[in-house]
Amino acid sequence: MALRDERVTLAHGGGGKAMRDLIEEVFTSVFQPDGMEDQARLVSEALQQPGARLAMTTDSFVVDPVEFPGGDIGKIAVCGTVNDLAVGGARPLWLSAAFIIEEGTEIALLRRIVASMKAEAVAAGVRIVTGDTKVVGRGSADKVFVTTAGVGVIPPGRDLMAGHVRPGDVAIVNGVLGDHGAAIMAARGDMALSAEIPSDCQGLGHLMEAVLAACPNVRAARDATRGGVASALNEIAEAAGCGIEIEETALPLRTEVKGMCEILGLDPLYLANEGTLVLFVPEAEAEAALAAMRSVKAGQGATIIGKATGGQAGRVTMRTLFGGARIVDMLVGEQLPRIC
Amino acid sequence: MALRDERVTLAHGGGGKAMRDLIEEVFTSVFQPDGMEDQARLVSEALQQPGARLAMTTDSFVVDPVEFPGGDIGKIAVCGTVNDLAVGGARPLWLSAAFIIEEGTEIALLRRIVASMKAEAVAAGVRIVTGDTKVVGRGSADKVFVTTAGVGVIPPGRDLMAGHVRPGDVAIVNGVLGDHGAAIMAARGDMALSAEIPSDCQGLGHLMEAVLAACPNVRAARDATRGGVASALNEIAEAAGCGIEIEETALPLRTEVKGMCEILGLDPLYLANEGTLVLFVPEAEAEAALAAMRSVKAGQGATIIGKATGGQAGRVTMRTLFGGARIVDMLVGEQLPRIC
Repeated sequence: MALRDERVTLAHGGGGKAMRDLIEEVFTSVFQPDGMEDQARLVSEALQQPGARLAMTTDSFVVDPVEFPGGDIGKIAVCGTVNDLAVGGARPLWLSAAFIIEEGTEIALLRRIVASMKAEAVAAGVRIVTGDTKVVGRGSADKVFVTTAGVGVIPPGRDLMAGHVRPGDVAIVNGVLGDHGAAIMAARGDMALSAEIPSDCQGLGHLMEAVLAACPNVRAARDATRGGVASALNEIAEAAGCGIEIEETALPLRTEVKGMCEILGLDPLYLANEGTLVLFVPEAEAEAALAAMRSVKAGQGATIIGKATGGQAGRVTMRTLFGGARIVDMLVGEQLPRIC
Repeated sequence: MALRDERVTLAHGGGGKAMRDLIEEVFTSVFQPDGMEDQARLVSEALQQPGARLAMTTDSFVVDPVEFPGGDIGKIAVCGTVNDLAVGGARPLWLSAAFIIEEGTEIALLRRIVASMKAEAVAAGVRIVTGDTKVVGRGSADKVFVTTAGVGVIPPGRDLMAGHVRPGDVAIVNGVLGDHGAAIMAARGDMALSAEIPSDCQGLGHLMEAVLAACPNVRAARDATRGGVASALNEIAEAAGCGIEIEETALPLRTEVKGMCEILGLDPLYLANEGTLVLFVPEAEAEAALAAMRSVKAGQGATIIGKATGGQAGRVTMRTLFGGARIVDMLVGEQLPRIC
């Protein structure tokens, strides 16, 4: 093995032999791209079908801590990009992965992150086909940041868009809300919480495939990451020019998350998720959607939380426990930095 | 205008209204993607041609300083990704752009970076179609890091690869070497150099198109970024299993860069470039390649620097000014951190 260092040094970012050793031993030996050119060269029959469209998305990940119950920055980077593709109706195909590494970061940590990315990519049926590493001096970054970009294919005729949601459509989530935000908060340790809450971090590609196969008229889906379900619903209501009404009693919450929210005065609707989507389908397809979602692991907790209405365009309201109604606005300001 | 802040705050990364305002006002108003979904949806006839392949690449950019003579981190991010696509024979089509921003960064700086990316994308004929922003606390990153990923199309039948270079092929560069490395070194100010050296930061897409149109048998091209021309040549020699011999007297150098190298004891072969490529063509096509390169702005300084040989596989040698020969190894260790 060429790599004897235990920690990353600036030499590993210099473009020479040390960098090549790091890349070959830690990254490409695991990801196994087809070649060592600076670009991946790819063919997809699905992409060449008449009417197929290419979907492309990117996200940077700066989550702190880098490892947390239920995941790490590598898993979240793969899931996040896979999910952005999947909720738009694309079948995820290929990912790029770029790493900004702080000098002094343990090589063993990088290996764990890379292994986690590989496992998640295999589970999602995508390939990590190209990448990059940069090293910055101590204090110029915090351990490691990962940026993934993803390419997928949208089959002919499929067109999911927030703007397609219509009054009467049913809003479904695939499981409990807020786990990722709560997990990170607990993992940081500043809340003196004893409960270890696992992040919901998971890929949603297979879930979306199952729903799309069962329901020909899915209107839109969105993964409720930063800003939580509240922000996702607001974006949809605004794009669709309709109202959305949700039921407080219908919101699925893990007991520990509910407890944390009550103690800390947090609203679970604004807590981040990393494997939770909001799906809108015509009412006639709601049962089929629920059944399809529950047939896959990521959708076992699927449940209806509300519906689109003819109410004020762009407004999200919630019927509370006590029968009243309150406006659920977009998140203003920041709830928790570096959640993803 | 919704954005009243002069500096980025953590709220701009929170997933709520502040983030949306930042994204809409600073980023999407300039890049003008087709929609505000989390993914771009794209169609290319070129990509759907039988035999066409998709090329994908990514790079993170952490250059310090963020702005320097001849460019900034935005320009370098677009050029770097365009060039990775172009030197592999792909026509660059679409870019993603992800920003990791340190709390406290001036919004005005972001605007300049974004304007610079837009201008460079227009010049290169690519579109920035999707993106992301993350904000980290003070001291957890250094101002702004940019990660671009790029997708392009390789036309049917085109197959540039370092492994295709054969003994007798001619090595051509498009202009003076080492300007980017020298520019960054001078811009950091720790060398007390009076000369302002502009980076060579430029897109190479049009140059590659011109060469490929004129020379049907181009073997390979590589942009000589981190690690300089020496590292690019070593990679090619290794992949092709041949030797490469270059002539010291043939290396084109800007007078200021030559002077800086002499004063500081640097080897210009290892200085980074951001708009300089090494091209290998059969000897019979060398004149046509030179003429084609010189017909576009980025290739006006095109010149032959050496050739592939039947010598020891993977070894790069240089005939020196004095007629001797020395081995040009890959860069070992780090020459200058955060060069790109």
